Amino acid sequence: MSLTPPPTTKSTAASTGILRVCGPDANGIVAAFAQLLYGHGCGIIDSENHADHEAILFFERIHFDYSQMKTDRHTLQNGIEEVCQRFSMQAPQLDWGDKRKKLCVMVSKYDHCLWELLLRHRAGELNCEIALILSNHPDLKEIADSFGIPFHVFKVTKDTKAEVEAQELALLKEHEIDLVVLARYMQIITDQFCEAYPVINIHHSFLPAFIGGKPYHRAHARGVKLIGATAHYATADLDEGPIIEQDIARISHRDEVNDLIRKGRLLEKSTLVTAVKAHIEDRIIVYNNKCVVFDG
Amino acid sequence: MSLTPPPTTKSTAASTGILRVCGPDANGIVAAFAQLLYGHGCGIIDSENHADHEAILFFERIHFDYSQMKTDRHTLQNGIEEVCQRFSMQAPQLDWGDKRKKLCVMVSKYDHCLWELLLRHRAGELNCEIALILSNHPDLKEIADSFGIPFHVFKVTKDTKAEVEAQELALLKEHEIDLVVLARYMQIITDQFCEAYPVINIHHSFLPAFIGGKPYHRAHARGVKLIGATAHYATADLDEGPIIEQDIARISHRDEVNDLIRKGRLLEKSTLVTAVKAHIEDRIIVYNNKCVVFDG
Amino acid sequence: MSLTPPPTTKSTAASTGILRVCGPDANGIVAAFAQLLYGHGCGIIDSENHADHEAILFFERIHFDYSQMKTDRHTLQNGIEEVCQRFSMQAPQLDWGDKRKKLCVMVSKYDHCLWELLLRHRAGELNCEIALILSNHPDLKEIADSFGIPFHVFKVTKDTKAEVEAQELALLKEHEIDLVVLARYMQIITDQFCEAYPVINIHHSFLPAFIGGKPYHRAHARGVKLIGATAHYATADLDEGPIIEQDIARISHRDEVNDLIRKGRLLEKSTLVTAVKAHIEDRIIVYNNKCVVFDG
Amino acid sequence: MSLTPPPTTKSTAASTGILRVCGPDANGIVAAFAQLLYGHGCGIIDSENHADHEAILFFERIHFDYSQMKTDRHTLQNGIEEVCQRFSMQAPQLDWGDKRKKLCVMVSKYDHCLWELLLRHRAGELNCEIALILSNHPDLKEIADSFGIPFHVFKVTKDTKAEVEAQELALLKEHEIDLVVLARYMQIITDQFCEAYPVINIHHSFLPAFIGGKPYHRAHARGVKLIGATAHYATADLDEGPIIEQDIARISHRDEVNDLIRKGRLLEKSTLVTAVKAHIEDRIIVYNNKCVVFDG
Repeated sequence: MSLTPPPTTKSTAASTGILRVCGPDANGIVAAFAQLLYGHGCGIIDSENHADHEAILFFERIHFDYSQMKTDRHTLQNGIEEVCQRFSMQAPQLDWGDKRKKLCVMVSKYDHCLWELLLRHRAGELNCEIALILSNHPDLKEIADSFGIPFHVFKVTKDTKAEVEAQELALLKEHEIDLVVLARYMQIITDQFCEAYPVINIHHSFLPAFIGGKPYHRAHARGVKLIGATAHYATADLDEGPIIEQDIARISHRDEVNDLIRKGRLLEKSTLVTAVKAHIEDRIIVYNNKCVVFDG
Repeated sequence: MSLTPPPTTKSTAASTGILRVCGPDANGIVAAFAQLLYGHGCGIIDSENHADHEAILFFERIHFDYSQMKTDRHTLQNGIEEVCQRFSMQAPQLDWGDKRKKLCVMVSKYDHCLWELLLRHRAGELNCEIALILSNHPDLKEIADSFGIPFHVFKVTKDTKAEVEAQELALLKEHEIDLVVLARYMQIITDQFCEAYPVINIHHSFLPAFIGGKPYHRAHARGVKLIGATAHYATADLDEGPIIEQDIARISHRDEVNDLIRKGRLLEKSTLVTAVKAHIEDRIIVYNNKCVVFDG
Repeated sequence: MSLTPPPTTKSTAASTGILRVCGPDANGIVAAFAQLLYGHGCGIIDSENHADHEAILFFERIHFDYSQMKTDRHTLQNGIEEVCQRFSMQAPQLDWGDKRKKLCVMVSKYDHCLWELLLRHRAGELNCEIALILSNHPDLKEIADSFGIPFHVFKVTKDTKAEVEAQELALLKEHEIDLVVLARYMQIITDQFCEAYPVINIHHSFLPAFIGGKPYHRAHARGVKLIGATAHYATADLDEGPIIEQDIARISHRDEVNDLIRKGRLLEKSTLVTAVKAHIEDRIIVYNNKCVVFDG
Repeated sequence: MSLTPPPTTKSTAASTGILRVCGPDANGIVAAFAQLLYGHGCGIIDSENHADHEAILFFERIHFDYSQMKTDRHTLQNGIEEVCQRFSMQAPQLDWGDKRKKLCVMVSKYDHCLWELLLRHRAGELNCEIALILSNHPDLKEIADSFGIPFHVFKVTKDTKAEVEAQELALLKEHEIDLVVLARYMQIITDQFCEAYPVINIHHSFLPAFIGGKPYHRAHARGVKLIGATAHYATADLDEGPIIEQDIARISHRDEVNDLIRKGRLLEKSTLVTAVKAHIEDRIIVYNNKCVVFDG
């Protein structure tokens, strides 16, 4: 019996991959993947599965060590696809863990979410590369510069939207971006954009309350006792995408709109980073406009 | 200098009263009431004020000790009213603290909120009398009986609603009820009812999300990561009344609708009791469909 | 491909069992158990595993459906034990789910934890039988009676402790108790007792702060801004056992000791029930004086 | 009746001052100060008082507008002192609000608390001047430089401690520092230092749990389910000073020491800034090793 050597940390272990699968619930799926990995000489570091009994769907995430794999990637991938087909599952999502995801952050004038992403990235909390920052305003260029990250300004007007987005998409392609993060980006993006890339947005309310503009003003007007923030995948329908993470803060009658905005900034930045971290670590599976978010 | 003798607890001190006032913000209000009370030989145990700078309104709650009052209640009351008129304030709300508020709890079939009210009342947390329990179903009669509280069943149909409510209102009047608590009462009450009595309702979502029916089912369908509960004064508009208290619980993809309902029960019962306690202790001032809730 | 029929709820599905295993981390464990269950015709409803990389230990909990098992319980049990031996694991913990655990609740004079256990049990949240209530005081007998649960008073003094505990243990044996819950039981129990049964205690502080007596008074004296409650397995060392669940509430300078006690009651009762629920659902594995608590 | 013009925000209103008083509880104190301010033509923007009934002590904080003061500062100050003497109170703390407090932040190698202070200061949340950064390591100089704040390195050894502290104190005096913030400064400071300046420290546990070194390691070893952070005034006794603010985060068996450190950083930085903000806004009164923290 050979003990699995403990990785230095859960996220930085060399030669570990992550497999995510999803499909109709059925007997034998867990066994099939576990057996397959074992047969190839791969150890399961941790795995988690979930069944939605209402939708009769099964989800599994397997974090595995392939440092002593007896075959090669191509063969294992084929084996995984074969199991998925046998159980009528969707195509597997397989990440070999040797290529950090590349992020594009889109901002306008608010800087708190951008700072939180950059600082927590630098602290080693986000295992990705922040490759590009886009904005419709030049204000935050200095921050990007101080971190040595390319910063591009794309002014958007109603008339130029399609054209500008085409330029942006070209730039994203050039930089081989894997994920777009809207860090309080104050422009609506098009469906094309959302379909081309996974896009995580931070909305400054606990959705579905206060969908749309000026949620803090409306929360103040309504006299709520809690404010919230919601990180979700952006989809064609504004603020209707799959929710990844939400958090709230308690407020009182003493809090004016400006206090809500101030308290909300803390929620926005931490909620957004939590969601981005979950995406980067391949812990999310989207289905039926919902997110399975496996534990970190 | 005579030291104020410390009351045994904040809420049960003998001969203490609570004054709540509200009106246009102006210089001299705090001084006027403080001076008035002092002049009558009353000590301020604690007081809290608040200004809504947007609405330019002022609110104050004063908890005072009148055990050594040099005049009488009538004279002090007159003095308070005179100050309110001088500052163009609304009529004062003055409670001499020698008569416990009488509550009517309205229920249907769910018992968790009723139990929490009864048990925490018995533990001495709610300084009131639970005088009456009304229901549209007989199911919870046994609980009422075990606490020795009158329990009446009023079956309601669309056709009989007006007539039945008239009977209920007559019963409330007979019992000299001060506050009605809807403890998961599954009937809509009429405007007349809400206007006749202060009515606190518990809604099983963080309003304004999921207004209306089946909020847990809709929360599950939407894939939120938090569920909530909201205690509010009931008004003519369903779930649109002034919010007193809200709380949330974290959920995950593992939680089915039944889990939301189960977790929600804990929120509902604690949120409702917190709101009822604030009302009983005269800590709430309602204005512009919002609640100032002074700290307990 | 036969779809697993969705159970009515996660906890009440007929013919489902729970396997918990623990041992040195190694490749192939997940596959071995998954394959074994599949081979016997059992479906995995959900499973979760965990590796403590520091202690190089592996933990797994498998919730499986044996309604279409092709062999019998004895054969499957043998197979499981064989796998455990092969991987040098501890003896497996296997629950066939057809016998509800029997609880003995021990109380003194405080009733809030007892009420919460009884009411949430009656609401169907705790899949167990509350078979017995023991106390060193007669005060709570009426509550036990109203739920039809046997209630025994055992007065304890320093001199009679050993003798009385022997009587209590005899009674627990007679009632075939599986778990003892100390619901604010104000007596120290002996090592013998803790070794004879799993015992869950609720301590009214966030351990390891305020170990021992009068934690609310000491919290007030220290001027903390949070109070807490901790549910843990009782061991020979007072308040030093493995922690199952903790929660806190925010307090302020306005809160006197009595307010801490009042706010603490809410924490105590909810934290205790959460811990008892985790134990009943076989979601806990204890090792190195810690608890792995798999998600519910 | 002249309405008080609403200030633009609660914290930036011109010509507003804050008075804090504390002494034996007695009748007439609230009236005396309210009357005094009114007599001088000052309006009360908001005021809050508190009585510790056990210690029989009274505390009040009054935020007042002196833009239409009919006398001068000296005369009002004399009046306030006279009232304090009449009621045997401590010397009043009076801030005219026209001079921002000057902060010295002390750091070692961790940068997350420093960043949070600097960024939230820049966002306008902290109404103070960050005038100086001291460190026993040169690592964070670049951050200080990018904000244009003087940064001094003082290497400390056992033998040089007294001498180095003398140099530091001289520098603090030269910069007219009002408050010292230990932002994860990894050196013990002397009593002399704590007595010369108010010093706020952030400790990475929910005190009094895990006093002293390596709290995250000890929390992990103990198997707690919550970690915390505590901001407190530093006193001669390590980690025993008056607590200003505490917060916690939920952890699980999945979290290793590194995860606790990571999650703890978020707690540390937000808890520290909350405490610093309360101090800067003159919302804290210290007595009996506790803090009254009036609401913001």
